[in-house]
Amino acid sequence: MTHRPKVLVVGGVACGPKVASRLKRILPEADVTMIEKGELVSYGACGLPYFVEGYFADIGQLTKTQAGMARTPAFFEAVKGFKVRTRTEAVHIDRKAKTLAVKNLLDGSIETLPYDKLVLATGGLPLRPPIPGITLKNVWFMTHPDDAESLTREAARQHLNHAVLVGAGFIGIEMAEALTEYGLEVTLVEMMDQIMPGVLDKDIAALAANHIREKGVRLVLGQRVEAVEGETKVTGVRTDKQLLPADLVLVAVGTRPNIDLARSAGLTCDKAISVNAHGQTSDPDIYAGGDCVATHYIQPGYDTALYVPLGSTANKQGRVIADHIAGKTSAFAGISCSSIVQAFDIAMGRTGLGERQAATLGIDYETVVFSGPDKPHYMPDAAQMVIKMIAAKQDHRLLGVQMAGMGQIDKRLDVAAAVIRFGGTVEQLADIDFCYAPPFSPPIDPLAACAHLMINKLDGIAHGISAFEARRQMEAGNVLVVDVRMPEERREGRLPYETLDIPLDIIRSKAEELPRDREILTFCRVSMRGYEAQRILNAAGLDKVSFIEGGMVAWPFEVAR
Amino acid sequence: MTHRPKVLVVGGVACGPKVASRLKRILPEADVTMIEKGELVSYGACGLPYFVEGYFADIGQLTKTQAGMARTPAFFEAVKGFKVRTRTEAVHIDRKAKTLAVKNLLDGSIETLPYDKLVLATGGLPLRPPIPGITLKNVWFMTHPDDAESLTREAARQHLNHAVLVGAGFIGIEMAEALTEYGLEVTLVEMMDQIMPGVLDKDIAALAANHIREKGVRLVLGQRVEAVEGETKVTGVRTDKQLLPADLVLVAVGTRPNIDLARSAGLTCDKAISVNAHGQTSDPDIYAGGDCVATHYIQPGYDTALYVPLGSTANKQGRVIADHIAGKTSAFAGISCSSIVQAFDIAMGRTGLGERQAATLGIDYETVVFSGPDKPHYMPDAAQMVIKMIAAKQDHRLLGVQMAGMGQIDKRLDVAAAVIRFGGTVEQLADIDFCYAPPFSPPIDPLAACAHLMINKLDGIAHGISAFEARRQMEAGNVLVVDVRMPEERREGRLPYETLDIPLDIIRSKAEELPRDREILTFCRVSMRGYEAQRILNAAGLDKVSFIEGGMVAWPFEVAR
Repeated sequence: MTHRPKVLVVGGVACGPKVASRLKRILPEADVTMIEKGELVSYGACGLPYFVEGYFADIGQLTKTQAGMARTPAFFEAVKGFKVRTRTEAVHIDRKAKTLAVKNLLDGSIETLPYDKLVLATGGLPLRPPIPGITLKNVWFMTHPDDAESLTREAARQHLNHAVLVGAGFIGIEMAEALTEYGLEVTLVEMMDQIMPGVLDKDIAALAANHIREKGVRLVLGQRVEAVEGETKVTGVRTDKQLLPADLVLVAVGTRPNIDLARSAGLTCDKAISVNAHGQTSDPDIYAGGDCVATHYIQPGYDTALYVPLGSTANKQGRVIADHIAGKTSAFAGISCSSIVQAFDIAMGRTGLGERQAATLGIDYETVVFSGPDKPHYMPDAAQMVIKMIAAKQDHRLLGVQMAGMGQIDKRLDVAAAVIRFGGTVEQLADIDFCYAPPFSPPIDPLAACAHLMINKLDGIAHGISAFEARRQMEAGNVLVVDVRMPEERREGRLPYETLDIPLDIIRSKAEELPRDREILTFCRVSMRGYEAQRILNAAGLDKVSFIEGGMVAWPFEVAR
Repeated sequence: MTHRPKVLVVGGVACGPKVASRLKRILPEADVTMIEKGELVSYGACGLPYFVEGYFADIGQLTKTQAGMARTPAFFEAVKGFKVRTRTEAVHIDRKAKTLAVKNLLDGSIETLPYDKLVLATGGLPLRPPIPGITLKNVWFMTHPDDAESLTREAARQHLNHAVLVGAGFIGIEMAEALTEYGLEVTLVEMMDQIMPGVLDKDIAALAANHIREKGVRLVLGQRVEAVEGETKVTGVRTDKQLLPADLVLVAVGTRPNIDLARSAGLTCDKAISVNAHGQTSDPDIYAGGDCVATHYIQPGYDTALYVPLGSTANKQGRVIADHIAGKTSAFAGISCSSIVQAFDIAMGRTGLGERQAATLGIDYETVVFSGPDKPHYMPDAAQMVIKMIAAKQDHRLLGVQMAGMGQIDKRLDVAAAVIRFGGTVEQLADIDFCYAPPFSPPIDPLAACAHLMINKLDGIAHGISAFEARRQMEAGNVLVVDVRMPEERREGRLPYETLDIPLDIIRSKAEELPRDREILTFCRVSMRGYEAQRILNAAGLDKVSFIEGGMVAWPFEVAR
């Protein structure tokens, strides 16, 4: 490398500025230029839905540092010491000559810039489904501060009534909340038969969906959008089953990596640009990071390339790329598919593998669903959370955790992400010395309690089944269902099936009366007592007993009142 | 072991009920009896300060399950299947005969009970300093629901004015908040020269102390209480330096293990009852767990016995003891000294080793202090947190994390506890795929950002010094202090020393004017710009530059306005 290496960074939103800033800090002699097609650089795109919802009034906040300095090209030059060229598009890489052709979007001129190292941080683009009407007025995508600002202005100005959001992923759910705040009737349409299909398993998704419905959002699941209707302005959204009235449509069906430049330069791409752990593409002098690259799972044995565009990952990759250019051997460890979203009063999220991924990988896994409060029940703000845990049967390794509910979902997911980083078992998770005081958690943290339940299940002590399996058995009609709650609790709701009501405190004395030849299902509010009842009946010689995991709190289907 | 082993459990608060309940679930044929000296069993003692503060009105909540069932002897018998004898004191163990003599506290009769396995969960007792006046009226200890109930009644009834709390640990701090809510003038006296001396290092403690002072609590640190003054009722507390008026005194100077029974039976005791990883004492048929036992650190290499009485630990140990009696090989992994306390609007806590412990163990360690918001700065509820991280210089292993501030302290401490469980490095901590969305964290979680700063420090890139060291240097007067904030930020407060004000965005151009032969200290609000300035000045050829870690946010001393 030359004494003063020329480094070009293409893309100025998340990974790009990180590479350039870090590189100038650790290798100040580097000659770094960042190229950005748009006008703005380094904006917090993840904040857009919160701007729309009114969390903050000045969209300029998204391009400021926490100290309030605007991240303009001048800022980067003065503070970080690298050059920024906005409204400049990278159009061609000549790998042999090691040059990048860039186009000035203001005057159309082309210039050829030499590089020693080139960094592609070209980001992602919103997927645009090829459906008629997608270009009509009031059909929105949400990727740039301009989108958020215009949408906010229009939503306020036009006295709109019906918003249809296409895609029930992060942005769809965040915007459903934001637009509900504007008083719009919001319908969320999703092609798959659940919300958050790429993130959550159907059981946790179903619980979260119930909450979103309770907040007034209409969910239309398992329907494909075939057209956006309207003359110049949108009037409706037609799915394969119905026509939904709409005077505002937001399409958020995912992101695709922006890899045209990389591909035309002959760089290897899989789901996105392929990179090694240092961020190098198939050309070692060209790096790539952020929403334009494919990444890998944080634990070995999961060989599929992953495409999970997130600002957190982009930042980590940017750091690694800068380090490697500067001669440090940092490596990006990979991701554990962690993600979270707030939806009205609850949060939902996941880290690690979901059931589908575990099955695809051929892992023999166990699952458990646990409900419980995030704090001691006597604290007035204690809130119920539902945790689903997936572990490998063979070595008890924690594979994944999914959660939905009130309370601090993010804390437990981040702890699980840490355990997964280390390839830990559920026993090791339960060992963690969680900080305990009543404002923060019960004496046994719910995540540890869930791990205990998983251990009991793996050990053959706890016989839990999922709500989906329980419903299947109840629909088939061949089980005896025992509600072990106290009578007054049943006012909160009952399962819509015939149940035998035996409160836990008398079940020992009633065990003799229960049939030994029938499958028995027990449950309570959260199924701690359901589990207890299973053990009591087992001890009384009944061995065909299971409990419904998570009890009423985790029951995602209809409840009889 | 006999077919139907007789198991006696001494102590009915936390570990005891856990042992008995778990044992009956996994070994239902066991004949289990729990013996408790008091009237109440299985109460959440940690909730007492929150009852006093009025978080909940019915103290009975503390003895109820989350489903609202009262944990009475009848409950345990009916639901859990073991016998409970309250108002019964264990008085003598005959290890040879394998019997336990118990005394009925109602009629004084003695009975001898045989056991196959004996479990000691005798808990802890509040330390009672041997000072005159400690038995006066209105001198309180806070260990039992009766204490909390009487104190609450008296505090309301007597129109008290001055409360003096002796001991600035968990209970002292929680009760300072609770009694402030009652309108009392609260003074917190601590023998050591900082709050939370067993938990926090002095820098983090000093920050937290400032917050407590701002909330109106008078802190009297580094003074020893020599007497409680008064005739029948308390009128004051005399320290080695002054007389503090008091019409209510609460003494919370720590807990000692209740080990008389164990010791008189000849069981080995260190700081408390010594047990192995399965909870067995020096007599393999006698187990012990909870606040009466000494435990060990969760990572090897730290050989001192630890005494950290906590309900979370007691529960884990109870599970392990039940498992081992039932023939399972579960082991208690140890603790990482995790603890947390809420104090008005902030929380403070720690996991892992503090500086003193690391030094005692002869570890060559590095520390770093980091300040930053818990969420993106554009979110309106973003709050500043201060993190102190300690890592081993040799292998970069995370040794400990301490925090104080608003925002989700507990989340970051629990993640750190997970990393410590696995003996992970700061690099591995930074790898964790934290869940990211604006309501939960910035794209780079503060804990990961702090790990990055530690890595930069270990790599020799970041030259940070602590506020204590910075003050020492400034007092000595031989440093040039550069404030790199923007002019308007200085209104929030300045260091009470002469500073040169050079905003970060012009420091590159001013570097030439700075002296090359003098030590330079840079800082800003949180010292991200302080660090940036250090790198900029380094690049300009100035090599005697350090930044003040954590900036103004982590500055624990006086600030000039």
